Amino acid sequence: MIFHKGTLLVLSGPSGSGKSTLIHTILQHIDNVYFSISTTTRAKREGEVDGRDYYFVSREQFEKEIAAGEFLEWANVHGNYYGTSIKPVKKAVEAGKLVLFDIDVQGFMSIKKSPFAKILTSVFITTPTMSELERRLIARGSDTEETIKKRLANAQKEITYMPHYDYILINSDLQQSQEQILAIAKAARLKRAEDEIGEFINYWKEH
Amino acid sequence: MIFHKGTLLVLSGPSGSGKSTLIHTILQHIDNVYFSISTTTRAKREGEVDGRDYYFVSREQFEKEIAAGEFLEWANVHGNYYGTSIKPVKKAVEAGKLVLFDIDVQGFMSIKKSPFAKILTSVFITTPTMSELERRLIARGSDTEETIKKRLANAQKEITYMPHYDYILINSDLQQSQEQILAIAKAARLKRAEDEIGEFINYWKEH
Repeated sequence: MIFHKGTLLVLSGPSGSGKSTLIHTILQHIDNVYFSISTTTRAKREGEVDGRDYYFVSREQFEKEIAAGEFLEWANVHGNYYGTSIKPVKKAVEAGKLVLFDIDVQGFMSIKKSPFAKILTSVFITTPTMSELERRLIARGSDTEETIKKRLANAQKEITYMPHYDYILINSDLQQSQEQILAIAKAARLKRAEDEIGEFINYWKEH
Repeated sequence: MIFHKGTLLVLSGPSGSGKSTLIHTILQHIDNVYFSISTTTRAKREGEVDGRDYYFVSREQFEKEIAAGEFLEWANVHGNYYGTSIKPVKKAVEAGKLVLFDIDVQGFMSIKKSPFAKILTSVFITTPTMSELERRLIARGSDTEETIKKRLANAQKEITYMPHYDYILINSDLQQSQEQILAIAKAARLKRAEDEIGEFINYWKEH
């Protein structure tokens, strides 16, 4: 018997921490990864594709799924729902995938309390300082001054959740950060659920 | 501020699982590792060196250190004491080392309950089957038939502790196992104690 089930890897961190680049690094270098796509009720923006960026659904549909217990985690942010459906995650775990999540601290806290906790690895990604985060947000030039202020205020809240994560990645040197995230992703594969370990122990003794 | 404190990495697994080879792999490829040496009251065997294989001490000395609370973990096995002193581990953590432990399941359970738990990573190493373990013990030719029987009986007990470990490494392909243990060791470096995270958060907000 070889273990064949998948595991979960959560990446959180402020917008501007370099999280998206590190997710891209994992997708490029690690086989058999399923990138979890969130469901939302917010309007589709220009260039966004349903099923790639988000699953876009109606408010009625989302609330029906909440009631049916079909979300692993969900939140209402400024009137829009965001969430992760359990079904595709379960399916990917059964298929032996590394299920990769780019979610905020609240979403992570929910997954940490879910039945997936034993096979979950979590990483908090941050800049070395807040002024470095500000510098990067200004440099990428995609946000207004007001949005940058909001992002910095939000980052100050998010960073207080750091102690709940397994690993802390301070993203100052990109090459080093890429090596670190790949090490974490490879290790994450070796987490095992208790039921699978139980099966293995029986098999091991009998063979 | 950059994190500068060390972390702990425990490797457990039956004699014959290939644990020693994987410890050697870590020592060869990872910088700044401190391999924890146990203290024992058992007699020194031929070829063993005090301070390399064990710290050999008297029963009186060992019991004095137990009473003084100087052991991170200790056990009495068939009349001989074995244990890990806290002091060198603390010193190595302060110096930013990855502190590597080759200890049994009981010793691990004690460390897991210690104040080091938050910066501890643990791996259980095993053969794919019990008969494969027996085959390896016979092949290495260093044990009597009776000792092999004892080792197999002990392995059957040890393996039931698997669910308590962070990672499970089934050592069937050496090259793959080496890649896996190096990924785990690199990731282990990114665990952080709550006090160090607290300091970082304050620093981050102020800079």
